[in-house]
Amino acid sequence: MGEAASLIGADWGNTNLRLFCFDAAGRVTAEKNAPQGILQVPGGGFEAALEALAGDWLEGSPPILLCGAIGSRQGWLETPYVPCPAGEADLAAALTPLPTRLGRAWIAAGVSALTLERAETMRGEETKMLGLLAGQDGVVVSPGTHSKWVRLEGGRITALRSFMTGELFATLKAHSILGALMMPGPDDPDAFDLGVLRSLADPATTSLMLAARAEVLLGRLAPDQVASFLSGVLIGAEVRDGLLECGPGPPIRLVGSAGLMGLYARAMALAGRTDVPQTSGDQAAADGLWRLSRGLVGA
Amino acid sequence: MGEAASLIGADWGNTNLRLFCFDAAGRVTAEKNAPQGILQVPGGGFEAALEALAGDWLEGSPPILLCGAIGSRQGWLETPYVPCPAGEADLAAALTPLPTRLGRAWIAAGVSALTLERAETMRGEETKMLGLLAGQDGVVVSPGTHSKWVRLEGGRITALRSFMTGELFATLKAHSILGALMMPGPDDPDAFDLGVLRSLADPATTSLMLAARAEVLLGRLAPDQVASFLSGVLIGAEVRDGLLECGPGPPIRLVGSAGLMGLYARAMALAGRTDVPQTSGDQAAADGLWRLSRGLVGA
Repeated sequence: MGEAASLIGADWGNTNLRLFCFDAAGRVTAEKNAPQGILQVPGGGFEAALEALAGDWLEGSPPILLCGAIGSRQGWLETPYVPCPAGEADLAAALTPLPTRLGRAWIAAGVSALTLERAETMRGEETKMLGLLAGQDGVVVSPGTHSKWVRLEGGRITALRSFMTGELFATLKAHSILGALMMPGPDDPDAFDLGVLRSLADPATTSLMLAARAEVLLGRLAPDQVASFLSGVLIGAEVRDGLLECGPGPPIRLVGSAGLMGLYARAMALAGRTDVPQTSGDQAAADGLWRLSRGLVGA
Repeated sequence: MGEAASLIGADWGNTNLRLFCFDAAGRVTAEKNAPQGILQVPGGGFEAALEALAGDWLEGSPPILLCGAIGSRQGWLETPYVPCPAGEADLAAALTPLPTRLGRAWIAAGVSALTLERAETMRGEETKMLGLLAGQDGVVVSPGTHSKWVRLEGGRITALRSFMTGELFATLKAHSILGALMMPGPDDPDAFDLGVLRSLADPATTSLMLAARAEVLLGRLAPDQVASFLSGVLIGAEVRDGLLECGPGPPIRLVGSAGLMGLYARAMALAGRTDVPQTSGDQAAADGLWRLSRGLVGA
């Protein structure tokens, strides 16, 4: 082993646990990943799961900082939501100490936005935004189970909007008449594009979803194209509604996994937005965890 | 027993089988209903299921006419789709003889609409439209698992649009994070109205669905209100998109069950359409089956 860790950071979501080991300069020296999201770990098993995955990183008892669904009611310890507008100092001040025999530990707060028109929350994405807060104003899109569109203005998170895109796709695939129709097949870019274009041209999302079935019944779509078409309809609807809300002004950036960012970039290009840079979600999480941890020195 | 039946009609859908016994004047003298939709009856069991439910109605071997999903690929015998525009004569000409030892029998065709922008099909609703075809031009809304908006012009079905509303609600309730959050409770008209109003004001349906969760997390909605709120969001989105497509001109009529028509009428009223008469779906099915059968005399 080299030098001892100066921080263990965790992006601990509903379906996945990703750990980062930092050196004293804030560089990530190692990463570990496990399908040990809070939905997979039995209640009360969070400490054991973290200890097992972190292993010898825990030597020397470095501080531990967790973000994501682990701070939800179903997680290890419920932490508050910081209401918008929320900047780095607000989020650092809302870190919640976590009692654990593994050492000094904290869980990050989430962010909420409550307006007359809508309630919104996020947990984990706020940490990924921290490195971007210092930069240009704009909108950050974080695709996933519950995709987020996050407005950054003047160094603060000022608004957010969630879409059920990923969960809707998975649920319809597993438990609907559309899933019963799907045949396995390779990703089909043409069927995906067709779905995106349908949604960009038509606001009736719950109709376009179902139309996948009629396309097959009438012979215009093959059963092994249905998954890609439905993915296109759902991502296309999110891009349509997200762009409508954020308007043509603000720059847009994607933060997430390479695969999902590729699909979203494709859909955004079909909507006329080709100027969308991409940032790795893991890198953004590590960056945000390190930033948040700086306020903990000596805490 | 009174006089022998002159026709046995069946509205045989995915989840339900409803039988009508007609006298020689076309009056319904008896009805029977069973949860024996084509998804419940094992393959090959359709004849036995029909015989068991019809019972002594079969004495004298009256003609039998079936409509609905029973004519789909998963049904008893696949019948064609008649493309729009489709009138009563087109549908009568497309009746498909059904070989069965129960007597002379036919299954109705479905209706399809294939445009560059969209594929649409229906089975069963076309029969319910027949009695209305003779009347005023307009749009008929048939709420359900896959709701239909059907355009009637000049005595023909000229266009249709399906919405996944009912299946989406049931799937999300049984298999999503929203369902996990729901607590049982009485129907909540205020929560339903709130969901409808959200959808009428905002096209981002897949975001509004998920916002139900944040409303609970932030304390503005109780867990036993989530089902009504989600129902409002989904029905509201359908009404918003359906009205947008049909425009302010054509009269609208509801055809379906009393419970669903009540919810749709409420949502339409919130959208400014208070002039929406209601027709019982069972009555419309019986009426349509009798009309279709008249072409079969002596066949």
